[in-house]
Amino acid sequence: MSTAYRPLNDGTLAGVLAPLKEVSERLGGDFSQWTVEEVGDGNLNLVFIVTGPKGSVIAKQALPYVRLVGDTWPLPLSRSYYEHLALAEQTRHVPKHLPKIYHYDRNLALIVMEYLTPHIIMRKGLIRGIEYPRFAGHIAEFMAQTLFKTSALNVPAAEHKRRIWGFADNIEMCKITEDLVFTDPYRVAKLNRWTTPYLDDIAAEFRSDAPLKVLVQRRKLQFLTSAEAMIHGDLHTGSIMLTPEDMRVIDPEFAFMGPMGFDVGAVLGNLLIAYMSQEGHEGRPGSRTPYRHWLLVQIEQVWRQFAKRFRELWDQSKSGDAYMPELFTDTPGAAAFAVEKDRFMRTLFVDSVTFAGIKMIRRILGLAHTEDLESIADPAMRARCEIKALTLARRLILEAERLSGITDVTSAARAIQSTH
Amino acid sequence: MSTAYRPLNDGTLAGVLAPLKEVSERLGGDFSQWTVEEVGDGNLNLVFIVTGPKGSVIAKQALPYVRLVGDTWPLPLSRSYYEHLALAEQTRHVPKHLPKIYHYDRNLALIVMEYLTPHIIMRKGLIRGIEYPRFAGHIAEFMAQTLFKTSALNVPAAEHKRRIWGFADNIEMCKITEDLVFTDPYRVAKLNRWTTPYLDDIAAEFRSDAPLKVLVQRRKLQFLTSAEAMIHGDLHTGSIMLTPEDMRVIDPEFAFMGPMGFDVGAVLGNLLIAYMSQEGHEGRPGSRTPYRHWLLVQIEQVWRQFAKRFRELWDQSKSGDAYMPELFTDTPGAAAFAVEKDRFMRTLFVDSVTFAGIKMIRRILGLAHTEDLESIADPAMRARCEIKALTLARRLILEAERLSGITDVTSAARAIQSTH
Repeated sequence: MSTAYRPLNDGTLAGVLAPLKEVSERLGGDFSQWTVEEVGDGNLNLVFIVTGPKGSVIAKQALPYVRLVGDTWPLPLSRSYYEHLALAEQTRHVPKHLPKIYHYDRNLALIVMEYLTPHIIMRKGLIRGIEYPRFAGHIAEFMAQTLFKTSALNVPAAEHKRRIWGFADNIEMCKITEDLVFTDPYRVAKLNRWTTPYLDDIAAEFRSDAPLKVLVQRRKLQFLTSAEAMIHGDLHTGSIMLTPEDMRVIDPEFAFMGPMGFDVGAVLGNLLIAYMSQEGHEGRPGSRTPYRHWLLVQIEQVWRQFAKRFRELWDQSKSGDAYMPELFTDTPGAAAFAVEKDRFMRTLFVDSVTFAGIKMIRRILGLAHTEDLESIADPAMRARCEIKALTLARRLILEAERLSGITDVTSAARAIQSTH
Repeated sequence: MSTAYRPLNDGTLAGVLAPLKEVSERLGGDFSQWTVEEVGDGNLNLVFIVTGPKGSVIAKQALPYVRLVGDTWPLPLSRSYYEHLALAEQTRHVPKHLPKIYHYDRNLALIVMEYLTPHIIMRKGLIRGIEYPRFAGHIAEFMAQTLFKTSALNVPAAEHKRRIWGFADNIEMCKITEDLVFTDPYRVAKLNRWTTPYLDDIAAEFRSDAPLKVLVQRRKLQFLTSAEAMIHGDLHTGSIMLTPEDMRVIDPEFAFMGPMGFDVGAVLGNLLIAYMSQEGHEGRPGSRTPYRHWLLVQIEQVWRQFAKRFRELWDQSKSGDAYMPELFTDTPGAAAFAVEKDRFMRTLFVDSVTFAGIKMIRRILGLAHTEDLESIADPAMRARCEIKALTLARRLILEAERLSGITDVTSAARAIQSTH
């Protein structure tokens, strides 16, 4: 069925879905019995929940502009193509951590997928102070699988290059990151916003912090040139859906072949934002102290379990064209290769911590903020949390190479959080 | 004119060229007056000199297999497409250092270009001991222009990504480098060869040198993942044609978006091979001492002038999306940016020196050797030169990060050359 693009709505979506066997079986009944609710609260897309007598599905349709800003900021529908491409790739490696895909229509820029229930967006759970005992292990597994398996450490060169080719044209989505994450917070930019007047001074400080800006630009160059693996590209806690037992990663329309540390840093940075925002969600002073502790433990676990799984996958893999295992089969070779893997993981740690800091800053001084902080009604309290987050973020970027490990990150977070 | 691929020969080439206005005007006369001579001494292609009453042109046609090995090693004709793409790109930046292109036929995998005269392949000049006073400045300019101008330091992100996309499918040519440069010399491989029995021991040492292998594989990963700039990909002294006044770079069919240091290292490494091979070309002991000195001066000049020009181009450029100049306009910003540029150049130096060492080793222990050494008839003398080159190459790879600058490279070369 060839379908010209048009934005769908409550009235037209059911008619598009009705002919799709897998979708209609899942919904049950006749399409006249289906209800459609638009629930998109993201920045870029229409998201519908379609419910029938038997069940529900999600229909996500790209709009030809940035929803957050309006139709003055056009954005190509091709991002839906890359989202589907990335979902399919991720599903090959960790199917249990992704929504099932029922249908993809390239012309309509429409992906129909599993309705996840009772999952909630992780960020909302973190605001409510909910503990997710299996999250750290799950996200570690997701990242290790998707990053390692799509890297030249695991695949032959030809496959790696085809994957680079396949994502190279996701230009406009990468450009959003290049501008909003790596550039705008460090200059006067129309789209920037922050909790004024409280953050006016620190925003100005960041814009004139030459060492900070150099380090961020060095990472922008890495983001532009380092095709290490297929990264999700937007792996914050708003792209993760959770129950206490289950975790799914959604929304990979920013996916491309980029630096692995960008994904790991997104997770760490957003957990650190959640950590620093807890004070603004306390019913009484100190009531979130145990939850803060839990968050720091998760941050440590995410890195440690990710690093462990990544190393395990590397140790098991024989198929990559980089560091071909056959070169390191004798005893000195195996030993030197193990040391090199440690060095690689250390570099990835420094990358991840630096990207974490960069991702935190853009959420406080740039265009797109997070509900963790935005939902703190008192601007003075919000600013207090934000300044602590910025202070930590800056330190992570400036000192990443001197940090001995993930506990140095959580120690710094704890020290800054406890200041008055 | 649509033309199905067929290998051309002395008899059929003139008929293909006759309808081409620019070519036939350059050759003059009627095509029955043209002479065709096949002169390809490379590893991959047919190369014809076509001469008419008025002048000559070169016609280069890709063969569907590796000429050096035979039709058991197929190689795609698309490399001619990438060669033309790279020639066109390089010509935009440094037209004076490239052959003029008269015609390109994608179906025939045929490029018709300027016949360079009285230019000779640089490697042959180095074997004869000819000094080229303008070479260092010219190759420095070529590399600075082509590498800087096609980097994200100079171009917007969208252009950078389109260039990555455009070269990403040159897979088989990159694979040759990945295998023959980065892998085979460090394992038992059918295609390896060396001056036996003299080099048997050192070849075995290199195959079991774990620290060396780790560093080489680290660079292979960089070659597979770092899309810094459009690199020539095979910039040895056989890809450079010279007169005392002029320099042209040819044969960029290995071009892709890769690490800049690979090109710079190819030049430095091949000059160092030339340096170490001089002893084998001496009429009497020491007769090439002044020329050896000249070569080391050129090596220093190539790096210094390249680094200087690259920095100048960077200082002048305002268009790159990486390190956007507008972020560093205040005094502390400008100072920090200058330091960062120095750091970038230092990294590029370490990259270049390491790749130089890697390129030297593959020319002595791998499949494809160089005439500098191959033309030394006495195998004991050839082995003596080769062992010195290997000793230097290994040291460059192992110690690159500890070298303070290019004179450390030339000092090491001099020290090793003067041993007995």
